[in-house]
Amino acid sequence: MAEATLYYEDFPPGLRLPLGPFEVTAQDIIDFARQFDPQPMHLSREAGEASILGGLAASGWHTCAMLMRMMFDSYISRSSGQGAPGIDSMEWKRPVLAGDILSGFSEVEAARPLKSRPGIGMVTCRHELVNQRGETVLVARNASMIRQKSTPENAP
Amino acid sequence: MAEATLYYEDFPPGLRLPLGPFEVTAQDIIDFARQFDPQPMHLSREAGEASILGGLAASGWHTCAMLMRMMFDSYISRSSGQGAPGIDSMEWKRPVLAGDILSGFSEVEAARPLKSRPGIGMVTCRHELVNQRGETVLVARNASMIRQKSTPENAP
Repeated sequence: MAEATLYYEDFPPGLRLPLGPFEVTAQDIIDFARQFDPQPMHLSREAGEASILGGLAASGWHTCAMLMRMMFDSYISRSSGQGAPGIDSMEWKRPVLAGDILSGFSEVEAARPLKSRPGIGMVTCRHELVNQRGETVLVARNASMIRQKSTPENAP
Repeated sequence: MAEATLYYEDFPPGLRLPLGPFEVTAQDIIDFARQFDPQPMHLSREAGEASILGGLAASGWHTCAMLMRMMFDSYISRSSGQGAPGIDSMEWKRPVLAGDILSGFSEVEAARPLKSRPGIGMVTCRHELVNQRGETVLVARNASMIRQKSTPENAP
């Protein structure tokens, strides 16, 4: 991980952070599905096309993992992140199909210092991903714990 | 996938379906993290122990994927599942650490036929996972689309 350069104070409400582009390959879809979600529509083009998803489609849980990777590459790798308590909401709006290229943004919706953990703040983001046709495939919201600048252990 | 034997009608509110046991290995934690969430506390024991997670800890998104696998092995593999619209809520209550053994249940909270998709019903479950010490590590809620028995295409 790169040296921490982003602190809680660097995530004010309204900030938009870009996500992607991220290419979704058939092999990635199949590899994830074999390990975690081996339903037919995630394992073969034929079964995907016969399903309501309309093609070889990533497991929704795989799309979640891809979102995490895009967040990491965009800003979490440079931030003093301390983990997250969960996911507030996750909507899989459309299938993510083999060959799709995803991009989007995380937008800070709220930020507050944590009383229970001095020196750490909670940042809530709304995440949105679209495919190469501009169709929204994912809308989600979650909060992350990020270290504050103004604590003794962060003082130079 | 096994032949479909469970339909919408087989998931009445109150039904509890067992999940796990599922062993979480250090290698699995590291492999997932390298691909999707390469934060230090998910990549090495030393960094995990130095973090607020207290040990080599699975990415929360990895815990989601493990939940999916446990659901598949317990009932989705035998059901006529048609996908899911998302996640209503996901709480990562405690770290999932290398060596943990997870188990738990999915409990049906609600079930309703879908007006927009005749022949398919929506089943909402609450999921809970505990570790080998009986500590709750995950509480989640989501809905899945499952084919109904009583449609012409399912008639024998």
